[in-house]
Amino acid sequence: MATAYDALHAHLRATSLLGSTAALLAWDQETQMPHGAGDRRAEQLAQLAELQHQRMVDARVADWLAACESDPRVQQDADRHANVREWRRDHTRATRLPGRLVAELAEVESKAQQAWASARAKDSFHQFRPWLERMVALQQQKADCLKTSGQARWDALADLYEPGMNAADLRALFAPLRTALVALRDKLRGGARPDDRFARQPIDESKQEAFVRAVLAAMGFDPARGRLDRSAHPFCTRVGADVRLTTRFRPDAVLDALGSTMHEGGHGLYEQGLEDTHFGTPLGEAVSLGIHESQSRLWENHVGRSAAFWRWCLPVAQKQLGTFADATADDLFRAVNVVKPSLIRVEADEATYDLHVMVRFELEQQLIDGQLGVANLPGEWNRLYRDYLGIAVPDDKHGCLQDVHWSCGLFGYFPTYTLGNLYAAQFTAAADKALGGLAALVERGQFATLREWLRRQIHRHGRRHSPAELCRLVTGAPLSPAPFLQHLEQKLAAVYRL
Amino acid sequence: MATAYDALHAHLRATSLLGSTAALLAWDQETQMPHGAGDRRAEQLAQLAELQHQRMVDARVADWLAACESDPRVQQDADRHANVREWRRDHTRATRLPGRLVAELAEVESKAQQAWASARAKDSFHQFRPWLERMVALQQQKADCLKTSGQARWDALADLYEPGMNAADLRALFAPLRTALVALRDKLRGGARPDDRFARQPIDESKQEAFVRAVLAAMGFDPARGRLDRSAHPFCTRVGADVRLTTRFRPDAVLDALGSTMHEGGHGLYEQGLEDTHFGTPLGEAVSLGIHESQSRLWENHVGRSAAFWRWCLPVAQKQLGTFADATADDLFRAVNVVKPSLIRVEADEATYDLHVMVRFELEQQLIDGQLGVANLPGEWNRLYRDYLGIAVPDDKHGCLQDVHWSCGLFGYFPTYTLGNLYAAQFTAAADKALGGLAALVERGQFATLREWLRRQIHRHGRRHSPAELCRLVTGAPLSPAPFLQHLEQKLAAVYRL
Repeated sequence: MATAYDALHAHLRATSLLGSTAALLAWDQETQMPHGAGDRRAEQLAQLAELQHQRMVDARVADWLAACESDPRVQQDADRHANVREWRRDHTRATRLPGRLVAELAEVESKAQQAWASARAKDSFHQFRPWLERMVALQQQKADCLKTSGQARWDALADLYEPGMNAADLRALFAPLRTALVALRDKLRGGARPDDRFARQPIDESKQEAFVRAVLAAMGFDPARGRLDRSAHPFCTRVGADVRLTTRFRPDAVLDALGSTMHEGGHGLYEQGLEDTHFGTPLGEAVSLGIHESQSRLWENHVGRSAAFWRWCLPVAQKQLGTFADATADDLFRAVNVVKPSLIRVEADEATYDLHVMVRFELEQQLIDGQLGVANLPGEWNRLYRDYLGIAVPDDKHGCLQDVHWSCGLFGYFPTYTLGNLYAAQFTAAADKALGGLAALVERGQFATLREWLRRQIHRHGRRHSPAELCRLVTGAPLSPAPFLQHLEQKLAAVYRL
Repeated sequence: MATAYDALHAHLRATSLLGSTAALLAWDQETQMPHGAGDRRAEQLAQLAELQHQRMVDARVADWLAACESDPRVQQDADRHANVREWRRDHTRATRLPGRLVAELAEVESKAQQAWASARAKDSFHQFRPWLERMVALQQQKADCLKTSGQARWDALADLYEPGMNAADLRALFAPLRTALVALRDKLRGGARPDDRFARQPIDESKQEAFVRAVLAAMGFDPARGRLDRSAHPFCTRVGADVRLTTRFRPDAVLDALGSTMHEGGHGLYEQGLEDTHFGTPLGEAVSLGIHESQSRLWENHVGRSAAFWRWCLPVAQKQLGTFADATADDLFRAVNVVKPSLIRVEADEATYDLHVMVRFELEQQLIDGQLGVANLPGEWNRLYRDYLGIAVPDDKHGCLQDVHWSCGLFGYFPTYTLGNLYAAQFTAAADKALGGLAALVERGQFATLREWLRRQIHRHGRRHSPAELCRLVTGAPLSPAPFLQHLEQKLAAVYRL
């Protein structure tokens, strides 16, 4: 006879399988779907969201969970114990949400994302405003359903993406970080700003594509279980057993294409590093978005923006691009590390990126708490950009319409980008120590050693440990801004010849 | 209070919506999916097939159907009456199939299709054989579940694709057709075989793509609700509100790329011509595969291989391809109409194509009835090719491994290709009469007149009429091989200067 664990496993694995089909619907919407199919797509996504939710709140799940929690054979088995603990977490959350809200959210997320893309293209906040108002109202409802007694709405949402994290802890991490980043920016004014014009010469997109594909292959992204496409906004998603990345190309921005590809490639290696035998269970899922982002930022910044990387990569670039003949590895190392406050988060340098995140962190708390009305968002956005980054926002397209997140219902998500930066630096320092010096491996293109270390230390655990536990296990210390700031200061001193 | 009809409609529309998501899984498998994701994809497809089946055999469906069938308000409403009649048909069929068989079929169809692609690439019937044996056994089970008292297994399967058609009727249509086609082939030996070498010069694939896209646009395929991709085997599928076509390119085969595109474009116009207000009900679905194929063959052969078409198309080809500068419209008309018995069905000319279909029609009846074992298939295939087409099959890749259908579980499907040819000729003759001469419209590129006539006469009806009724309504006569033979004889007399 099947045990409660077996029954629970089969039921929730099938639920995840439905989720993997929903992931294809979402990927296709962003990369392939003709625009006239949007409303039907929203219906398809809403249907699968509702089906998954119904399966999760099925009365039998509560019975099976209770049986597993009192079964010593389950509790003494490390894998099963961890899965049951995480399924309980997912189940508790799901039972707090009415099915109709889940379906409505999925439908509005799909439609609002399409409305956002159109509004952004036309630089029309006016056109997006009713969708954002509806989305904020839905997220407030969602937060009210999810929050525990005394918990703030925003914290209830943030916990979906970074279990255990809340606004107070984030503020404690962000405040010293902001001070240090602003001080660093001022210090760099006294240095020698690199000239990156040579890297902005137009390069044929097919050559750029061959180049980034070569780097992705060197990183060890498995093409038998993954693919790379183009989209307006690079992203990574898993569709069952394969992982799909996107990147983007502009003739004069080959280094951006490389950065996007290595970034999404880092996400992709995490997803490919999860153990397929655990598919459909928490042990087969990424633990948090902050940890996920650490993997993308580690490859994008700690590998891709290092001096050692360019000693390996310059000949690859020269061969694939047919350019950079007169450049040195140091020229490229300096070109990819120019610091300049700018308008667009995804194009920001490493030293100002987190200031973009902090703007959003402030604003979305106010939107969700009801202190800030959607109508006043552009004004507040522009005020904070002046305040944090010292720059004027010329239009909403380069301002509050730049990111897709809020249109997709991702409130409480942005801070995971900064957490990712901090985790990435702390993990890199640990890898450097454990592997006896990363630079020597990277400059020889021996990426497999790092990749396998990350797989062993982080990927294969899935949701076995909390993000905070994982950080301690991998690095021996709790998360701190110090390794990130040390990394930045050390690198930028070299770049700016301070 | 919602009526039984409303409840039934909502339930089965949602079931169709799940089916539209399954269509995306299948499209993606053929066009995008990395090969390492195949087993999980088979699971995803099996899950959605089982969910759809469970919904269709839900006990409430039988109650709602019975209530609708005895409700005069439903019976007197033409739309509702037709939907209920067809839902009853679908429900009866579904209830005959066990859910486990439905899921197993979906899983094996997905895996066997992937195994077929690999076996075909290696020309290894040996590798495909166990999959085909498993598939034949499953199809036999399926037929045994579906067949009514006294019905042959094969007829039960054929009825899935062409409602109301059976092997005896097909033999009655095919026998005189085969005699006439063989006679025609012999007659052409006395004519002047066109020289098509000028059309086999290598042409850059990006130019070929621009060319076929221009023709597809002229046909009126709506890109806001559709797209065109590449795949090893061209096909057309609908994913919710959009229609996805594929075609293929070889440097020396621009006319094949054009033919494939117009063929799939014809299928696509049918799907785009169904009324979206009827989405998820029988009135929003294609009536049969024979009628579907009539639309593809009409555009591919009756338009695309006509003399009038090339008077319009030659300048388009010259502009997009930068070639054919010295050719006349008549040269191209003759080049696309060369008759030559060949090995591959999808590359066959109009006069020998149906002989390929008849080979499969014979063999699959024997496979399903158990008279022919899978091990003996290659030998029998090769024997019939000598007999029907007078050619020797050099290997299984160019023989019984050429078509995907049996690997996908499509037994009883092949004859719909020949039905499509016959319907196409009969519909074209009717359109020619109704529109006062098609050639004059086609040579001016006025494809909209024909397309809208097809939409009004055929597409918008969905499953309102049976294929046989539809044929009578549109053409005033039952289906006959005569219009097809007349079309062929007349055209080939011009091509071969007889």
